[in-house]
Amino acid sequence: MDTFSEVAANNLPASEFSSCDRAMMQRCIELARQALGKTAPNPLVGSVIVKDGEIVGEGFHPGAGQPHAEVFALRSAGEQARGATLYVNLEPCNHYGRTPPCSEAVVASGVARVVVGMVDPNPLVAGGGIAKLRQAGIEVVVGVEEEVCQRLNEGFVHRILYQRPFGILKYAMTLDGKIATFTGHSTWVTGVAARQEVHQLRVACDAVIVGGNTVRRDNPHLTSHHTTAHNPLRVVMTKTLDLPKTARLWDIQEAPTLVLTQTGANVPFQTWLRDRQVEVVELDNLTPAAAMTYLYDRGCLSVLWECGGTLSAQAIADGSVQKILAFIAPKIVGGIGSPSPVGDLGLAEMTQALTLERVSWRSIGEDCLIEGYLPLEKS
Amino acid sequence: MDTFSEVAANNLPASEFSSCDRAMMQRCIELARQALGKTAPNPLVGSVIVKDGEIVGEGFHPGAGQPHAEVFALRSAGEQARGATLYVNLEPCNHYGRTPPCSEAVVASGVARVVVGMVDPNPLVAGGGIAKLRQAGIEVVVGVEEEVCQRLNEGFVHRILYQRPFGILKYAMTLDGKIATFTGHSTWVTGVAARQEVHQLRVACDAVIVGGNTVRRDNPHLTSHHTTAHNPLRVVMTKTLDLPKTARLWDIQEAPTLVLTQTGANVPFQTWLRDRQVEVVELDNLTPAAAMTYLYDRGCLSVLWECGGTLSAQAIADGSVQKILAFIAPKIVGGIGSPSPVGDLGLAEMTQALTLERVSWRSIGEDCLIEGYLPLEKS
Repeated sequence: MDTFSEVAANNLPASEFSSCDRAMMQRCIELARQALGKTAPNPLVGSVIVKDGEIVGEGFHPGAGQPHAEVFALRSAGEQARGATLYVNLEPCNHYGRTPPCSEAVVASGVARVVVGMVDPNPLVAGGGIAKLRQAGIEVVVGVEEEVCQRLNEGFVHRILYQRPFGILKYAMTLDGKIATFTGHSTWVTGVAARQEVHQLRVACDAVIVGGNTVRRDNPHLTSHHTTAHNPLRVVMTKTLDLPKTARLWDIQEAPTLVLTQTGANVPFQTWLRDRQVEVVELDNLTPAAAMTYLYDRGCLSVLWECGGTLSAQAIADGSVQKILAFIAPKIVGGIGSPSPVGDLGLAEMTQALTLERVSWRSIGEDCLIEGYLPLEKS
Repeated sequence: MDTFSEVAANNLPASEFSSCDRAMMQRCIELARQALGKTAPNPLVGSVIVKDGEIVGEGFHPGAGQPHAEVFALRSAGEQARGATLYVNLEPCNHYGRTPPCSEAVVASGVARVVVGMVDPNPLVAGGGIAKLRQAGIEVVVGVEEEVCQRLNEGFVHRILYQRPFGILKYAMTLDGKIATFTGHSTWVTGVAARQEVHQLRVACDAVIVGGNTVRRDNPHLTSHHTTAHNPLRVVMTKTLDLPKTARLWDIQEAPTLVLTQTGANVPFQTWLRDRQVEVVELDNLTPAAAMTYLYDRGCLSVLWECGGTLSAQAIADGSVQKILAFIAPKIVGGIGSPSPVGDLGLAEMTQALTLERVSWRSIGEDCLIEGYLPLEKS
């Protein structure tokens, strides 16, 4: 059990739950995160089976169409599951989808106790899996490390509740609020550690969106910069499709690229892109919300906005951003014409500003990362 | 001694010095701070005398022309000073100024040991007071809580070393880098706790400077908003002297106001101001550096820049800012035309940005305060 005391030490404040239960739930989360970015439209789920204080089985859900985490954990535990405790960060499913319901497999395994991080976010099914287990005489504990579990699957939860992907706006600015100099030069605002954090963030997202300006000005890669890790779908939103043929995003050896454009825009360039296996989709009314609806239909859980001020303001205004990650570099660059991260929102009074909720900050290398959530009525 | 264990608990990491010595030095700093903003051009100094583990005397320097901290502490200790330990955050002076040298008084008192926080910053006299004490057979320890002592008197130190006051630029901005909306509306960016912190900051400064735009747009009080606390000299820098007669700054019942303007500007308004006991000073070339030179001559240690982006950029560019205090409110207001805290510095590449040193951040109410120092070659 020694392995887990370190995990437990990083926990949130002491709760009603035992430190062993909390440590095992943290292990579930650790397992679940091995499939970061690969499970859409499914959630991230990990499971651990413990008998007589020893872990006898572990598993995680690797992606849609494959077995759920509990099934992998039960398989690895085998006969030892009988009378054991099963930990899982999300309520076991209770319906026939691409795989049979996990609740049945759990009951059949003979486990005596099930510890659940959070209930299913879908209000129509929430609690159904838990009820099924209790009917079978299994002791069920719910809510262990619930906040961490909710956060792990915030994309999935938002998708289920609002039928839209979870939108994250990320930007890097100087301490005087600039994302570039007056010439547009922006490499680099933050240090190496913050940029690596952004690469990690991309691993966890299903799509990353920029506008045409960012493609023309920064010519970004938008990858996780890891040879083995998941890369998100790279999405360009452009009404005009007036983009350079030399953009790095057209090299789909690195990662897939999707261009969202207005119906009928620059048809010759559309053909040129499709010839290079770049996907092009025409929408009748190209807005951030329309892009998010389209990405919902494609199964995305989390979408990262890495765009400039104009598009980010539109995305905030039409409810396509739920969370903001602001990297702040302790440097001053100045410039009246130097761009700031968010363009026009039409807010004339400071009292109308959108106040973030659940704000936290931490240092990353020499920079600071401030995270917060937009109020729900605005998102 | 129990009273001081709490103080000691707030100390910096353990050092070579005893926790008792560090706790007593923290008490010196606490005493010194009672004269915050009132000692210019003198430093903030507190002194404690300890005998057999008990404090037998305390004192602080209340302001120019009055006795030094050590003298007050020795007076309150009386005969008990003999054989005791004297603590003081700054090396005792060794020259005849408006008062006789403290080193002589300390020797005469018969104390056996002196603990000094930091040496005199003036390279011409540094160590002289300490040498005098050692010559008299007193044991002298130097450097206890030195970082905190240096910081307490950073204004005084800068003044001595560079013959200029220490310039602090303070601003409050949203998480998207705006100090006001596109209409100029700015009340309030930060919450109550951050604004109270600014009032405290004003208590500690000798002057606070704004430009004409801030007077016209925000009509500020620029006071510490405490009936009993020190108010800084309120300074307006204005080349045109085109200012409203209704400005709150012309009410000198609240605090004194100084207008720095270009020679010959708007003479009738100069007269109108002087009639209301507002001080007006004409300079031939009104720049931030010229203002700082003038305020040096008036004895200022610390000057707080609370101006808008144009003046703050000029102040940074001409070396009138040494430290930056950025209050960041976790809210988004947007606006391409919404002003940012620092105007044009002429920096075209992000790599030219001025990187702050000794950066720290802390939360103040719902807001975040990031502090750092400009590199010395730029200040």
